[in-house]
Amino acid sequence: MHRTKVRVVEDALDANNTIARANREDFDRHHVSVVNLMSAPGAGKTALLERALAEPLAGVRVGVLEGDVQGSYDADRLAALHVPVTQLNTDPGFGGECHLDANMVRSALAEVPLDELDLLVIENVGNLVCPAEFRVGEDVRAMVCSVTEGEDKPLKYPLMFRACELVVVNKLDLLPHLDFDLDKLLYNLDAVNPGVERMLVSARTGEGVDAWRDWLLAVAQRERAPA
Amino acid sequence: MHRTKVRVVEDALDANNTIARANREDFDRHHVSVVNLMSAPGAGKTALLERALAEPLAGVRVGVLEGDVQGSYDADRLAALHVPVTQLNTDPGFGGECHLDANMVRSALAEVPLDELDLLVIENVGNLVCPAEFRVGEDVRAMVCSVTEGEDKPLKYPLMFRACELVVVNKLDLLPHLDFDLDKLLYNLDAVNPGVERMLVSARTGEGVDAWRDWLLAVAQRERAPA
Repeated sequence: MHRTKVRVVEDALDANNTIARANREDFDRHHVSVVNLMSAPGAGKTALLERALAEPLAGVRVGVLEGDVQGSYDADRLAALHVPVTQLNTDPGFGGECHLDANMVRSALAEVPLDELDLLVIENVGNLVCPAEFRVGEDVRAMVCSVTEGEDKPLKYPLMFRACELVVVNKLDLLPHLDFDLDKLLYNLDAVNPGVERMLVSARTGEGVDAWRDWLLAVAQRERAPA
Repeated sequence: MHRTKVRVVEDALDANNTIARANREDFDRHHVSVVNLMSAPGAGKTALLERALAEPLAGVRVGVLEGDVQGSYDADRLAALHVPVTQLNTDPGFGGECHLDANMVRSALAEVPLDELDLLVIENVGNLVCPAEFRVGEDVRAMVCSVTEGEDKPLKYPLMFRACELVVVNKLDLLPHLDFDLDKLLYNLDAVNPGVERMLVSARTGEGVDAWRDWLLAVAQRERAPA
């Protein structure tokens, strides 16, 4: 029973990876770098994108693919910045899934103006578990972790913290009002993903947002690894 | 393709409900009331249980079944209060699932001292999507929503907010430090689950925790609906 389940899961992930490679080929053909941005609900993914994209990013043309179970609240916020945003809902047709997978992203690609972009940020569904299991054809995975969530999150959701090349620690402005030990969070982070790049920011005050913009810029400009 | 997927999901939920009924019969036989407690990661489920259970609950014997992908960090916190806690991990044997289902709960029941309890709180995996889809045999579902997560969460995760009989709004002590409109959250809550019972609390300061304790007490003492 257990072995059968493992096999089914492995087959599903194999199928996902095949489609992820097809997405990646499309991104490569259009010379678009892609970030898969993940976090728990309410950690501040959209707020950080609003901050980063409020002013032009050194000539880099950025678009967003906005993943949500339903609604277009985040997409509407970003569209107000005149950023090309495509909404991808997991509710109709995908059973209200708690994550994006390669096939869902593929189904939305016809709506994404790839030939007008240098960088595409895919904002995943707010969830610290399943999004980490599904590659969607991205170059790099990043996550946002808010200090209000507690120091223990890397230990409780290690796959997510291990999957990412960048961990953005957000809501730093709230530190004086929390019983939260930042050193302990970073210690736990190093326990599951030693030395992973991290960034301390506040989307609310703008602290650290320059580094976040620089990181996005570097992703857009870096030599792309072979698919 | 889509219809097949819907059928598979429906069959899985049917199977889940059959096992949930078996769990419920076990709870009934032992006269144990059961709360399924859900939230996003870091909203404060464990902190609220620590607050509620730090002192005896008017003679009600409370136990906790602690659901996590891996680790026993929350269970350890609660065990320090001398509350009987059973750890249920979704990682080994269940593929690292992002939610508890009836079968996982069933697999843990042999470890739960039902004949020594009046109330069992099942702390679900931190996730605003899938936990709402799976009944586990509980009497009542409650969720914790933290004010740091933003006012839009009921609109973005409506199934979760609709599934619950109680919404505990936590981290109220942080309100002065946030750009957060509490009325807007409650308006959005009423938009998806009109009139649902809500409670404004701070696990950190203890504000509102008496009402939370009273609610748990009332669940433990109420006439149980037929399974």
